[in-house]
Amino acid sequence: MKEISDYSRMVEEAIAAKRYGAMRPSSLYEPVEYGLQKGGKRLRPVMLLMAGDAFGADTACLTDAAVGIEMFHNFTLLHDDVMDRSDMRRGRPTVHRRWDENTAILSGDTMLTLASSLMRQVPDRCLRGVLETFDAMAVEVYEGQRLDMDFEERNDVSVEQYLEMIEKKTSALLGASARIGAYIAGASEADCALMYEYGVKLGIAFQIQDDYLDLYGDPATFGKPIGGDVLNGKKTFLTVSALGLGDRVADEVRSGMALPADAEKIEKMRSVYDRAGIPEICREAIARYSGEAVAALNATAISEENRLPLEQLVDRLIHRRK
Amino acid sequence: MKEISDYSRMVEEAIAAKRYGAMRPSSLYEPVEYGLQKGGKRLRPVMLLMAGDAFGADTACLTDAAVGIEMFHNFTLLHDDVMDRSDMRRGRPTVHRRWDENTAILSGDTMLTLASSLMRQVPDRCLRGVLETFDAMAVEVYEGQRLDMDFEERNDVSVEQYLEMIEKKTSALLGASARIGAYIAGASEADCALMYEYGVKLGIAFQIQDDYLDLYGDPATFGKPIGGDVLNGKKTFLTVSALGLGDRVADEVRSGMALPADAEKIEKMRSVYDRAGIPEICREAIARYSGEAVAALNATAISEENRLPLEQLVDRLIHRRK
Repeated sequence: MKEISDYSRMVEEAIAAKRYGAMRPSSLYEPVEYGLQKGGKRLRPVMLLMAGDAFGADTACLTDAAVGIEMFHNFTLLHDDVMDRSDMRRGRPTVHRRWDENTAILSGDTMLTLASSLMRQVPDRCLRGVLETFDAMAVEVYEGQRLDMDFEERNDVSVEQYLEMIEKKTSALLGASARIGAYIAGASEADCALMYEYGVKLGIAFQIQDDYLDLYGDPATFGKPIGGDVLNGKKTFLTVSALGLGDRVADEVRSGMALPADAEKIEKMRSVYDRAGIPEICREAIARYSGEAVAALNATAISEENRLPLEQLVDRLIHRRK
Repeated sequence: MKEISDYSRMVEEAIAAKRYGAMRPSSLYEPVEYGLQKGGKRLRPVMLLMAGDAFGADTACLTDAAVGIEMFHNFTLLHDDVMDRSDMRRGRPTVHRRWDENTAILSGDTMLTLASSLMRQVPDRCLRGVLETFDAMAVEVYEGQRLDMDFEERNDVSVEQYLEMIEKKTSALLGASARIGAYIAGASEADCALMYEYGVKLGIAFQIQDDYLDLYGDPATFGKPIGGDVLNGKKTFLTVSALGLGDRVADEVRSGMALPADAEKIEKMRSVYDRAGIPEICREAIARYSGEAVAALNATAISEENRLPLEQLVDRLIHRRK
């Protein structure tokens, strides 16, 4: 039985074997390799490989698709970092800081086409289906990013709207990863749909966990400063949940968010959220969505033994500290 | 026998029928529709339709691919305009001026995925081949754009290097358009390769014509101010050809390019080019490449009658004034 770490190693090796940094012109491809370098969780390609394995796929048919999914993810990071003016990612300068904005745009475009080309390496019998899932997922990711940008201008985003946004921006990619793995393995349409559900629900739990850890994580293990979302005035699951708890709490949230961006603001927002019971609301939501992910998994035809790594992935993400 | 104008009308109708502007969120899709609106020559989708028709394709199989090619072309314009900081295109503000830079990046990304999805609407028998040509072309376009950006920093670009750059940046898309039309029609591999050659050679002639008209066009018909490339210090076929004519001419070009960007600089560069015989060099190159395009066309199995619109397209592009 393969462990999660076996799958991540397969992903690292498959990416390294592509040697994108050796391609010419290097001004186009070095940023591609840099963007793809180690440091991320490789969550999406690992999920694709696991899902394919669980349904008995030939690993050789999965590898390029797994690299393609990771390539797509990293393309979105290059462009999102330009759009968000983010200077650092995984402890290193972002591509548009290390090179320039035009490089991040153009090498990002290249990564999107390289991702499509990698997805295309599947056998004929699943070519159209894989590409349909991939393109539909990509459009959802753009729509999610657009909604996220539009929400920045608004103070009346509901919990439902926020969940729709993260489902598109974050979870659709996890859903597509799980679905594509199963699809390449020749799983039934019902099982493919359940695997998509597994990935999407896990993705929502993952994003809520992300929002929660940003304010409530342990500074010793979180890996970046606590309270970044509060300082950046970002709307998170914490914000929209508190805004939905009636006028008194909403007023406290709004006046807290209007404070200058310093340590006091972080303390103030934490105390508003604490009194409103937001940590419990987050933990309940994470448990609910991860439970739904496991339920979808249990409804598939995958044997109990083969389900194990996919269940471990849920545990790992829910109990992570960074 | 269909005329070029019949094909452009088909393209306009097919684009309008997609109603991208009605899709939600409109902040994502309105810029897509705006970018696709009338005003361009529709050269690439027209070429795809013509090539498909010449080999007897079912028009219904060609239309989405034609829209996909135009969508791809307009995606590159959105991102190129951001990278070049261009404010106007076809007499209207560019997307990043009308909205903002983030919108141009994200709606551009969306157009690239929509283009792939449109290319995917071909029958199974040609799915893989069409997507292979499309992805390979896209990568060439990025490489060409990157070389173009890298050349801006250099003063020693040779004519050969310049031609390699425009072959990737501009001509590969025309080659792919012609090839994909033929391929969908079920043309032989030899004929598909000849159609690619036809498109590429026509594309090179087209780009040299572009460079030539920018300085030697008739102000009454050119549609934009004459000498824009000179004012922007852009390296064109004129520049690299003159730089290759020995030290005396090269020195004159370099000192002319160092002048302040005004009407006098345009006059100065024109007189340097005139004395060096650059207009003749351009006209010869345009004639040579368009001749090679027609020769490739004549080597295909297309009947003489069916070749006519494709020959007319060459004439039209070579004798255009804007």
